[in-house]
Amino acid sequence: MLYPKFTLVLGGAASGKSSFAEQMVVSTGKSRVYFASSQVFDAEMQAKIDRHLVQRGPGWTTIEEPLEPGPALSALSARDICLFDCATMWLSNHLLAEGDLDAAQERLMAAIRHCPAQLVMVSNEVGHGIVPENALARRFREAQGRLNIALAAEADLVVLVVAGLPLALKGQLP
Amino acid sequence: MLYPKFTLVLGGAASGKSSFAEQMVVSTGKSRVYFASSQVFDAEMQAKIDRHLVQRGPGWTTIEEPLEPGPALSALSARDICLFDCATMWLSNHLLAEGDLDAAQERLMAAIRHCPAQLVMVSNEVGHGIVPENALARRFREAQGRLNIALAAEADLVVLVVAGLPLALKGQLP
Amino acid sequence: MLYPKFTLVLGGAASGKSSFAEQMVVSTGKSRVYFASSQVFDAEMQAKIDRHLVQRGPGWTTIEEPLEPGPALSALSARDICLFDCATMWLSNHLLAEGDLDAAQERLMAAIRHCPAQLVMVSNEVGHGIVPENALARRFREAQGRLNIALAAEADLVVLVVAGLPLALKGQLP
Repeated sequence: MLYPKFTLVLGGAASGKSSFAEQMVVSTGKSRVYFASSQVFDAEMQAKIDRHLVQRGPGWTTIEEPLEPGPALSALSARDICLFDCATMWLSNHLLAEGDLDAAQERLMAAIRHCPAQLVMVSNEVGHGIVPENALARRFREAQGRLNIALAAEADLVVLVVAGLPLALKGQLP
Repeated sequence: MLYPKFTLVLGGAASGKSSFAEQMVVSTGKSRVYFASSQVFDAEMQAKIDRHLVQRGPGWTTIEEPLEPGPALSALSARDICLFDCATMWLSNHLLAEGDLDAAQERLMAAIRHCPAQLVMVSNEVGHGIVPENALARRFREAQGRLNIALAAEADLVVLVVAGLPLALKGQLP
Repeated sequence: MLYPKFTLVLGGAASGKSSFAEQMVVSTGKSRVYFASSQVFDAEMQAKIDRHLVQRGPGWTTIEEPLEPGPALSALSARDICLFDCATMWLSNHLLAEGDLDAAQERLMAAIRHCPAQLVMVSNEVGHGIVPENALARRFREAQGRLNIALAAEADLVVLVVAGLPLALKGQLP
């Protein structure tokens, strides 16, 4: 199917957002690249990564890069489609690294603009609960909110996935 | 009004999802069955159940079954419409019972498919907040996400209720 | 642009709901009133208020009232447009004041109905996470849900903002 240059797929935890994004990518028939931004800290995370790997099936080239996607994204070709999974893990890695988050976000936005491949990026909606008691969790949800706004402003198509069902917030589903 | 065989009504806490589902059921003019899956553990829960009972008003047959809805659902008739309130309590009961959750979900899906009555099921959206610090809460929201995806795939109509207002995610509101 | 008498703008934390509401207000070309319901308890809150003040820019008359907006709203004129930011802070102030919340909500609804100015009210969606362990947080999200249902029932236009993008839940965006 025909999708635009940059699609943002938003969703809650276990909403089916990654499966939806994978099906989008497969439906294009292009050369598939899986961009993994997650870092493995425990068995729960490893189990989740393994489950997603089985779900995706074969036929993907995998790139692992937790912090700076720019060089790898710019090395892709116009024949590729890249599934970036996910912006939330990228953000979490930068918050843990305690660097300059605004500068990192600018580099991410530049990497998206300069990527020659079609791009589908997954990100989490995390701001619809009660204010967290934990200060780091409050900082995280503020940063995730700001990042999602920037990504959505840049994207040609923004899809919110709820219970596996897509809802277009910007652009139109093919 | 004309609703399809199986409708899923999703929503957050205190979103008006149960009231919306009740109005749907009443509008059909069919014989009304209220399927209660909740177990009462404390006064807060009892107060909530009592409030919903008053809201619904008279004219309902009530069935209470926390774990295995299959037999009661299959005993209904094509003249009935059943409000199943709710999938989240059903899931919570099974997590507490520590049985085989995948098998229980398969039995629930079979019960839905074999129910002769029209069915309106309420379920919670719980995955749009920060990752919970509690491991059981994380397990619960993963399981609720997977259950909602399965229910939405089976449903003819999926409605997300926000601030009492319905948004059709699958199918069309009459 | 042409907006109706009363618009409710819902959204999660850092969803861009306040920016969207500000742009709505500015686009009308009317005399702008900013109604601040927040109380400053700590440096984090003050920093957020200062950030919003810079975002809004000049050209606003500011009213600060944490609990009873009625008198100030009724003193506005039909040439004004008022941004009420936000219903969630108003609710939080009343929960802390431990008065009669139902009566306070009735006064708020009456104040909205009797306000001569056009009104844009911002409120938070807080019910899409896991059940909070804290009893006050549970009470807050129940009260916020009920308040949002009442506001949405009264509003001519209800917009849900996700990642800075508006989705009309009631009425139509111009």
